[in-house]
Amino acid sequence: DYSKLDKIIIGVCGGDGIGPMITGMGQHVLETLLADKVKAGKVEFRVIDGLTIERRAELGCAIPPDTMEELKACHVILKGPTTTPRKGDPWPNVESANVAMRKALDLFANVRPVKVPELGIDWTFYRENTEGGYAVGSQGVQVGDDLFIDFTVATSQGCERIARLAFDYAHKTGKNRVSCVTKANIIKTTDGKFLDTCQKVAAEYPDVVFDDWYIDIMTAKLIDDKRRRDFKVFVLPNLYGDIITDEAAEIQGGVGTAGSANIGKRYAMFEAIHGSAPRMVQEGRAQYADPSSVLRASVMLLEHIGEIELAKKLDRALDICMFEKKKYVITGRDTGATAQQFTDYVLETIASL
Amino acid sequence: DYSKLDKIIIGVCGGDGIGPMITGMGQHVLETLLADKVKAGKVEFRVIDGLTIERRAELGCAIPPDTMEELKACHVILKGPTTTPRKGDPWPNVESANVAMRKALDLFANVRPVKVPELGIDWTFYRENTEGGYAVGSQGVQVGDDLFIDFTVATSQGCERIARLAFDYAHKTGKNRVSCVTKANIIKTTDGKFLDTCQKVAAEYPDVVFDDWYIDIMTAKLIDDKRRRDFKVFVLPNLYGDIITDEAAEIQGGVGTAGSANIGKRYAMFEAIHGSAPRMVQEGRAQYADPSSVLRASVMLLEHIGEIELAKKLDRALDICMFEKKKYVITGRDTGATAQQFTDYVLETIASL
Ligand SMILES: CC(C)[C@H](C(=O)O)[C@@H](O)C(=O)O
Ligand SMILES: CC(C)[C@H](C(=O)O)[C@@H](O)C(=O)O
Repeated sequence: DYSKLDKIIIGVCGGDGIGPMITGMGQHVLETLLADKVKAGKVEFRVIDGLTIERRAELGCAIPPDTMEELKACHVILKGPTTTPRKGDPWPNVESANVAMRKALDLFANVRPVKVPELGIDWTFYRENTEGGYAVGSQGVQVGDDLFIDFTVATSQGCERIARLAFDYAHKTGKNRVSCVTKANIIKTTDGKFLDTCQKVAAEYPDVVFDDWYIDIMTAKLIDDKRRRDFKVFVLPNLYGDIITDEAAEIQGGVGTAGSANIGKRYAMFEAIHGSAPRMVQEGRAQYADPSSVLRASVMLLEHIGEIELAKKLDRALDICMFEKKKYVITGRDTGATAQQFTDYVLETIASL
Repeated sequence: DYSKLDKIIIGVCGGDGIGPMITGMGQHVLETLLADKVKAGKVEFRVIDGLTIERRAELGCAIPPDTMEELKACHVILKGPTTTPRKGDPWPNVESANVAMRKALDLFANVRPVKVPELGIDWTFYRENTEGGYAVGSQGVQVGDDLFIDFTVATSQGCERIARLAFDYAHKTGKNRVSCVTKANIIKTTDGKFLDTCQKVAAEYPDVVFDDWYIDIMTAKLIDDKRRRDFKVFVLPNLYGDIITDEAAEIQGGVGTAGSANIGKRYAMFEAIHGSAPRMVQEGRAQYADPSSVLRASVMLLEHIGEIELAKKLDRALDICMFEKKKYVITGRDTGATAQQFTDYVLETIASL
């Protein structure tokens, strides 16, 4: 409960590529909305700039130890996308900083809302965030020259805590439906456990309708306009959550429009769901990056620290500004707003609410 | 090479639920198109009806031994969807007959075309069909009460043969682009091997453009109308192929519209990509099941046995009939054609070509 703290420390960790710029936009909006509290010493922003790919590559680690200390000294974190090296990149193969942070801070729930008011879509994805194929991602085994094995992991506790969070949310918000998405017909042991656990937890929430789906058919359902409005809350193992939230975000207007909350018992981290877009930077188009992902993440950050009214305001302003933006694109009037212009427009809109 | 055979034996295996009915439609169309060859004793159809869920449950196996014998006596198989028991079903937990057949007949490539001529979409998915999470699907381990582990498997040979098939196809058809889809940033050992192998094979096909993507962002790209036309041929590990082809099929008009070829060195099996739709049967709507999935599979069967002209005719007729069907739905004039009516319309259309 953040209201009991003397001061809430918000870490701002820019990341790579377009990250520092769009994260800066998020910080600017949050500082504007929280100005009184900052002045009164109730909220402090701390910029954490040690999490760059250059530094991680040089030190050969996913998160440098000093940066980890800084992160752990915060209560909540606003984080930009970080680059994960891939073949052909100039960096050695260091682990994903995202994934490392989720594990190190035990951020077990990745909550990703997707809303398309015009289409009646209002989805919230509860993605398990530390297990599945991500648990021991870099510790697969090679047997001789020709056999390769990776591991997928689930624990009772891991399944239970994400299921409970999803049902609590559905119950609390009156959304009243939780859909579990697995591939339990094939990945029987881990997905089977995940599904079983959701079924068990469902029994404790008689007011919430529960159903379960396979991930393959769910990717079809999300783009079926006759049925998709009926879905409300999803609960899914890590990898399926990863996959399907990009699809869902595209329906909302692109992965650049979706924010995500990584929630644990002690820490919480808020980020864009997309990558660091190095190509935009190379091509000199970084200033046109869409900051709405980070601004949506900022809504969730505000909610999380108990600033419900401010969260609602920012959310409402984003609904308006993103709808306007889509209209511009559709009618061909999109003049290509920069991140700064879009952010200014969001702040103006808030002021006019 | 089927032209060297005295007689081609086509097994027709109806499966469960709507399976026998829609597979019957496929058989009817094939028998009509191949009538001369059947009369001349060059083609024989054999109905294989032992693969029902009731029988599999009773015998406690994925594919009854006598049915397996019958299947192995055929050259190619047209197969309806089979039911995989899930929790709450009246049957004991027998393995998926699909997956068992793919493994037993070593059908290592699952080829799934998706076409939407109006949108300029012409995709072909080469899904690896025997490895990944499917290889040892039911042999995960439970450690104590709380730890659950599943295995994902890749072999050098498994990766290489699917990659080669995809590149051969792209080269032969002049489609000239192969996109590999993995999650090699996380599932490093197996997906890493898959991606490496595709890169290696790509080097042998200088006329084919190669690129690679992560599965999460690819589910977004498929519904991004600005970019998706550019994709031609996809090559993917088993699970990602499973997931993304349902999404792709939905764009084409639903999973009920997509056929699939399961290809091995010795055998080939052609099937709908969807399930047995028990609910349609319970609700008495089975006659309205869309047979176009099986008819698309029949196109691939004809191609496979070297009946290129007949394959083209059926394909063309399906393009026309499915486009008409979509128009009816869109303009509200859909009178709900039955499978039989749609099939008749397809045959009439072929006759008029
Ligand atoms: C960058 C990548 C490791 C990450 C993930 O797979 O979780 C991203 O796709 C996400 O969804 O946050
Ligand atoms: C029924 C199921 C086992 C199967 C699969 O997962 O491969 C199906 O979804 C498919 O795509 O053919």
